Amino acid sequence: MRVTGRSASPSESSGAEGGSISWAPLDTTEIRSAVDSVLADFLAVKLRSADSLPLPGVLETVRDFVLDGGKRIRPVLCVLGWHAAGGHGDLGPVLKAAASLELFHAFTLIHDDVMDGSATRRGRQSVHRALAESRRQRGGSDDAERFGANAAVLLGDLALVWSDELLHTAGLSPESLRAALAVLDTMRTEVMLGQYLDLLATGRPRGDVSHAVAIARFKTAKYTIERPLHLGVALAGAGRATREACSDYAIPIGEAFQFRDDILGVFGDPERTGKPVLDDLREGKPTVLMALATTRATPAQLRVLRAAVGYPGLDERSARAVRAVLEATGAHEDVERMINERHSMALAVLDRALFPPAVTATLRHLAHGLCARVS
Amino acid sequence: MRVTGRSASPSESSGAEGGSISWAPLDTTEIRSAVDSVLADFLAVKLRSADSLPLPGVLETVRDFVLDGGKRIRPVLCVLGWHAAGGHGDLGPVLKAAASLELFHAFTLIHDDVMDGSATRRGRQSVHRALAESRRQRGGSDDAERFGANAAVLLGDLALVWSDELLHTAGLSPESLRAALAVLDTMRTEVMLGQYLDLLATGRPRGDVSHAVAIARFKTAKYTIERPLHLGVALAGAGRATREACSDYAIPIGEAFQFRDDILGVFGDPERTGKPVLDDLREGKPTVLMALATTRATPAQLRVLRAAVGYPGLDERSARAVRAVLEATGAHEDVERMINERHSMALAVLDRALFPPAVTATLRHLAHGLCARVS
Repeated sequence: MRVTGRSASPSESSGAEGGSISWAPLDTTEIRSAVDSVLADFLAVKLRSADSLPLPGVLETVRDFVLDGGKRIRPVLCVLGWHAAGGHGDLGPVLKAAASLELFHAFTLIHDDVMDGSATRRGRQSVHRALAESRRQRGGSDDAERFGANAAVLLGDLALVWSDELLHTAGLSPESLRAALAVLDTMRTEVMLGQYLDLLATGRPRGDVSHAVAIARFKTAKYTIERPLHLGVALAGAGRATREACSDYAIPIGEAFQFRDDILGVFGDPERTGKPVLDDLREGKPTVLMALATTRATPAQLRVLRAAVGYPGLDERSARAVRAVLEATGAHEDVERMINERHSMALAVLDRALFPPAVTATLRHLAHGLCARVS
Repeated sequence: MRVTGRSASPSESSGAEGGSISWAPLDTTEIRSAVDSVLADFLAVKLRSADSLPLPGVLETVRDFVLDGGKRIRPVLCVLGWHAAGGHGDLGPVLKAAASLELFHAFTLIHDDVMDGSATRRGRQSVHRALAESRRQRGGSDDAERFGANAAVLLGDLALVWSDELLHTAGLSPESLRAALAVLDTMRTEVMLGQYLDLLATGRPRGDVSHAVAIARFKTAKYTIERPLHLGVALAGAGRATREACSDYAIPIGEAFQFRDDILGVFGDPERTGKPVLDDLREGKPTVLMALATTRATPAQLRVLRAAVGYPGLDERSARAVRAVLEATGAHEDVERMINERHSMALAVLDRALFPPAVTATLRHLAHGLCARVS
């Protein structure tokens, strides 16, 4: 099975470094489907164990949300981190630990959609909307919205609790479990504080570029790229050097990933991204894109931004006006440039890092996907 | 230090059983203050480590909420479970694991208040209200309520994440950690599903007594009494017999505790309970008290209940009418009787259980406090 990787050790890979590009990357599709199997099996057991409770369709909502979408970026990176650190032996527990990241991610997304009041996610109704809708169908129309939000907070919490349980029952050695818990404790605090920084800055457009970069780093680069790699490194029992090489790759790629997300949130095709293109503007997300435009805007352009961004009633017409300002100020172009710079930095790190060549090839491929994606 | 317990082993205690009442109970005040110290130290470190982030006063809100109130019932029961199972050796890690329950509890309370829209908790502003207020003072009055709710969801999540971290860094042996995680995974799923059952049944009064009992068992008896005892038992490395004896005590006492809470929620003195007495009625909490009254109400009494319970606008005058129905139907009296029955059952279990006499004396004392409390 390709996901177990080649037998190349870190020392072998350093010799083959120059030719790493010629190595075939690991099969990330296979990692994804292995992670999906772990999730499906785990959730099937959880649902069966709650069979006797009068909760018709409730846990199925969590299961379907987790299984019916998502790119599995974090689990894939966890497995790659394990390979990067020369992990060997049974991949089973590593896949379970990796899959636990996806349940944690479900928790963040479900809560995020409640907080942002988002109607859709992954091209479907968001969880709180689906729950509100089902409440309405059962005749509870007077409190359906509030019920949906509250129920989604609880189901998000449940996904978090199950994420823990999947990790704890992954069959890790005591040392691996302890190392994994330390990474995850750090990651979780970072996610919460990053979300809080984001929440504080959300609303009317501000010109604080460095604050927006800090949010991208804290909330996305660390959470989506760095810590999943570190989890894999920890599971392989490797130390500081590998962890730092992973960070040097992860932070620029993670920032670029967020910047791409910010661009897609304004200019993306809803058919492809699966979420309405006006939500980020209506919410007034504190992105680098918006901060740059705000800094450089003429008074007339600033009026356009201030009249539209952060208002729930923003329509496609105002969105077009905002997009024109993002183009005219050069903000869009500059963020594309920042993405390219970070992409190059990350590739340069891969050239220096002593990862097994197949891992280097995979991370190179992934970097391209994260920076150039359209959904 | 008295909290480390006497040296009486379970086998010694079985001989002394008949005279267990003459043993002095353990000093639960001392356990509480040891738990408070653990929490204060842990939170001080967490706050210091986030010093560089622009989050003025935010983490202090979590710290103050955790430190400024609460009866520490769960940590105390955890330490008692450890003593009941003949735990010996360093109490330090046990106190940290016990204290982690209090951070988890802070998470449930903060989220609960958001979901219920409660304005106060522990005699102070609830967290989401305090955050909304501080947003308003900083000039964000148009979105202050929504900000407060969202920020409180995040800070609740943070308390949960920190609860994990406190447990993971408690210095437990690998076996103790694994046993603790298994108990906590079970407990957390139970809490979430119990909360969900509660949410589903909240609103207009229903006459489903057995459903209301099931919620009390799932949400309170297991969460507040049984699982904290089991956590202590797991930390002591003890097995099924002790765990089952703890359950036999915990379930009736936990149900009685919830029934008392339900009575205080309608008849209690807000000065003493620290929460407004109308909230439970406005919310339409699915209590045994209300279910019994609904089952037995005459058509006229039913009209009173249906016109008042579950309406956010319920006032003191309607509350008085509801209380009169709870008395006239005998529901109040019957719930008092149910509390007494369960209290007696739990005491009978203690007489049979082979716990060290000091533990038995403490659990007896605690049972009285939980059933007869006024706040």
